Amino acid sequence: MRFFSALRRVWPPGIAALFGLAFTGAAGADTVSHFTLDNGLQVVVVEDHRAPVVQHMIWYKAGSADEPPSASGVAHFLEHLLFKATDTLAAGELSATVAANGGRDNAFTSFDYTAYFQRVAADRLALMMQMESDRMRNIRLTPENIATERDVIIEERNQRTENNPNALFSEQKRAAQYLNHRYGVPIIGWMHEMQSLDMQDALTFYDRYYAPNNAILVVSGDVTPAQVRGLATRYYGAIPANPDLPPRLRSQEPPQTAERRIVFRDPRVAQPYVSRSYLAPERDPGAQQEAAALTLLAELLGGGTTSFLTQRLQFDTQIATYSGAFYSGVSLDRTTFDLVVVPGPDITLTQAETALDQALDAFLTAGVDAGQLARIKKQIRAEQIYARDNVDAIANRYGQALASGLTVEDVQAWPDVLEAVSADQILSAARKLLDKRASVTGWLTQEEPS
Amino acid sequence: MRFFSALRRVWPPGIAALFGLAFTGAAGADTVSHFTLDNGLQVVVVEDHRAPVVQHMIWYKAGSADEPPSASGVAHFLEHLLFKATDTLAAGELSATVAANGGRDNAFTSFDYTAYFQRVAADRLALMMQMESDRMRNIRLTPENIATERDVIIEERNQRTENNPNALFSEQKRAAQYLNHRYGVPIIGWMHEMQSLDMQDALTFYDRYYAPNNAILVVSGDVTPAQVRGLATRYYGAIPANPDLPPRLRSQEPPQTAERRIVFRDPRVAQPYVSRSYLAPERDPGAQQEAAALTLLAELLGGGTTSFLTQRLQFDTQIATYSGAFYSGVSLDRTTFDLVVVPGPDITLTQAETALDQALDAFLTAGVDAGQLARIKKQIRAEQIYARDNVDAIANRYGQALASGLTVEDVQAWPDVLEAVSADQILSAARKLLDKRASVTGWLTQEEPS
Repeated sequence: MRFFSALRRVWPPGIAALFGLAFTGAAGADTVSHFTLDNGLQVVVVEDHRAPVVQHMIWYKAGSADEPPSASGVAHFLEHLLFKATDTLAAGELSATVAANGGRDNAFTSFDYTAYFQRVAADRLALMMQMESDRMRNIRLTPENIATERDVIIEERNQRTENNPNALFSEQKRAAQYLNHRYGVPIIGWMHEMQSLDMQDALTFYDRYYAPNNAILVVSGDVTPAQVRGLATRYYGAIPANPDLPPRLRSQEPPQTAERRIVFRDPRVAQPYVSRSYLAPERDPGAQQEAAALTLLAELLGGGTTSFLTQRLQFDTQIATYSGAFYSGVSLDRTTFDLVVVPGPDITLTQAETALDQALDAFLTAGVDAGQLARIKKQIRAEQIYARDNVDAIANRYGQALASGLTVEDVQAWPDVLEAVSADQILSAARKLLDKRASVTGWLTQEEPS
Repeated sequence: MRFFSALRRVWPPGIAALFGLAFTGAAGADTVSHFTLDNGLQVVVVEDHRAPVVQHMIWYKAGSADEPPSASGVAHFLEHLLFKATDTLAAGELSATVAANGGRDNAFTSFDYTAYFQRVAADRLALMMQMESDRMRNIRLTPENIATERDVIIEERNQRTENNPNALFSEQKRAAQYLNHRYGVPIIGWMHEMQSLDMQDALTFYDRYYAPNNAILVVSGDVTPAQVRGLATRYYGAIPANPDLPPRLRSQEPPQTAERRIVFRDPRVAQPYVSRSYLAPERDPGAQQEAAALTLLAELLGGGTTSFLTQRLQFDTQIATYSGAFYSGVSLDRTTFDLVVVPGPDITLTQAETALDQALDAFLTAGVDAGQLARIKKQIRAEQIYARDNVDAIANRYGQALASGLTVEDVQAWPDVLEAVSADQILSAARKLLDKRASVTGWLTQEEPS
């Protein structure tokens, strides 16, 4: 629960990881069932009987973007605090119990959700639900918990952000991308706000958001829907819904009408690069077409060795030693489409950026290569088929999607939506996306830029 | 109350007004007394018996930066709504009564405060207090009020912002300057949030902030402190303090570590220019020295024809047709120090910006000219003496300062603090200020920049 506390796109160990979002397809033929308990708890069951193990996850539809002003980091802070005592469990007892039963457990926090999971032998599922449902309502925090765990998250920020120019750059760039939305505030929190997080901040967030009508239970592995329904009703069904759960409305962006740039200089920068983000639409319930087009666009532009940017910037010319394009539409509110160019030897950031812009123009002029699009769609279908073997990944996919405002049906429709995207739709989405007025261009550099 | 609803630095009719903040000195010898009622209402009285008139002002320590998320514009919306009915006044009756008594009234909203005032014959002061204290607690809004007045503020935004590239540019630039603080949100509100403001938003803000313990009464003119105390106790003293008034804490900025730039292009731009803002400290209670140094720095750099930028950019060279530097330290939280260069014929924005940067470097190298500093201090003293003749301006100065976290003593000390600033302190403040990492450079342009 300490060092797996957020999306890796946010805590990059390096450039590659920063932009190394896996392309995750969806699950056309997943053995998935879902239902909702009377108290509002959504339940998703992913059956896989090949091994006698289960993954048990609780996703709260509350992440850093749901935090109140001045309390950034409290979603992640609370995630840490959920490993402290409850009425019936001592601090650390839940994890110790999972380990004693041969399992492992952890948790993570993102902009739109906070999730807790255990992976254990299938016959321990009831015990997991007993403990997880307990800490949904019964945590008992002490002032010492607050002081100690606040030090832990501050040290976590020191290690992951303050000591990492990539992360600091990414944070400043994101703050420049969002003019009004909380996605501009880092998941882990601004240091000065983390330092003043207190028991009241944590409990207010907990009392408001940790409730069955704001949660999704996902169980994958060697279980049946009937088993999960029985256990979930017994353990989670007893918890009343929170009647005061607020509607999930965040401050939305105003029109972004002025192109932005930032330069971040740090003597620790080993590898300068240019990074460009555009504000981009997300997948919405029943309306995933544009996000699907952008998903394919990212693959076409910068998804691997045959992609447009790679061909043009790394092979046709030696402008770049690395280039990439990244987009994930799973997001409650507007997300970003990201491009990166790491210049080759003796190439300046100016040259790299100019080459990037020329390549984007060339792509819009050339249009989508039909053969390349067909190859990418085929590759995605293959990945989706492989992905069915990874039952935990399927559980993650459903939990993340449902916590981000999508439905089970949206997840199941996604492969077909992707398949149906035409070259024209991709080009049209690209033209709409690549509007510099809604973009931030960032330079990470050690020196004064040339 | 319609079209005087915010600071003119925010609603610029043009470039000159945008940067034309008057340099306001302070009031060393003002005839000012102050006291606090039992319910927490602060009272300031500025005596001036030369004419039988009074200005009666109520300042609420609640402005747009105190608004909750997603409700931008509600402070200003509520200001409009305060001219509707109360338990005892019909809609519009307050203003009509003021006019019938030969007076005038208005109101304005800023980041840190909302203020209401009337200027009338001195013997009408009791009537003003009766009406103003009434609407402090007793407004009665109808759904029609909400719908009508929301249309009015939306039309106000259309006229002042949407139809004004200077204002749109300024708004996007300010949003890029502040990464976390509400000063990045426009006072009038983001259009999409204004459109959903409702009765509940207005009444929540009203109930929370419109209370004697969150207000400052300023009366200037032909009155005595004893008269004001008697009337204020009678009319305002009867209103109970709001025990639930929240502490005035806003989200503060994280370290700003990446230089930012924005480009705003609009076909309506008649005169392109370069604008640079730096995050800057504000005047704090008992700690006004750095703000005083920055106040003098703004004068030295760009305060008129003898200033450094003007000399260098307009006279020594013809880079600019206009240049200026602007700073006002009256702000609850960190404010900005602003520079502007309007390029001359055939000068590009790149050339103008380069010349600005060179001029700033030259200033830091050359240091502060002792003769120039002496001239500026003398000029400020003269302005302060003239300002004593303007009793309404004095009332404004105290109201604004007290609503922005300063004390009467701070206002009275300000001339001496300014006088005591040394050339070295100015240079030191300038070196600290002129850190591009905490700056935004904006280009307003009609064309693609060269």
